[in-house]
Amino acid sequence: MSGDTFMPLDPVIHSQVRLAIMSILTSVKQADFGFLKKTTETSDGNLSVHLSKLEEAGYISIKKGFRGKKPLTTCSLKEKGRTAFAKYLSALEDYLPPKE
Amino acid sequence: MSGDTFMPLDPVIHSQVRLAIMSILTSVKQADFGFLKKTTETSDGNLSVHLSKLEEAGYISIKKGFRGKKPLTTCSLKEKGRTAFAKYLSALEDYLPPKE
Repeated sequence: MSGDTFMPLDPVIHSQVRLAIMSILTSVKQADFGFLKKTTETSDGNLSVHLSKLEEAGYISIKKGFRGKKPLTTCSLKEKGRTAFAKYLSALEDYLPPKE
Repeated sequence: MSGDTFMPLDPVIHSQVRLAIMSILTSVKQADFGFLKKTTETSDGNLSVHLSKLEEAGYISIKKGFRGKKPLTTCSLKEKGRTAFAKYLSALEDYLPPKE
């Protein structure tokens, strides 16, 4: 804890699937829907809901296009998302025991 | 990520208030209700619900007694909780960027 209480954890990020998405998108320029679905092991519908939440918060951008004739959805982190994730990680430190 | 996917995060622990409670109880022998309420900044009812969830999972023990004439509820981590928290922290590493 830094002080007497815990820093709040951004609820938009503090969900297992959205945390995984944010984690992936901080380390790559962009990721497509299929890749995110595979790595987060979630369903199409569930992933769509989580991506929409992150998009509504202004944390990621979602682009719908085509690869050949197949639809392709790609996601990338926006600056607001990068800042929010950094803030989340900093707050999370409050909850973790110090490294030995 | 360790491998292709993310390790699941124990949903009993992965809630802001319960994560805070677990974090406190790993570093002290026991904590009373008032202290937990103050540090987690939650209401009596909300804290009670979260403590019950942790107790039902076998992660903490809750003892109700008295200090003088005032009722006193004290909580402490059980071995199962300590193991679960260590596992949670290990899984969480998957989601965090490597420290620079």
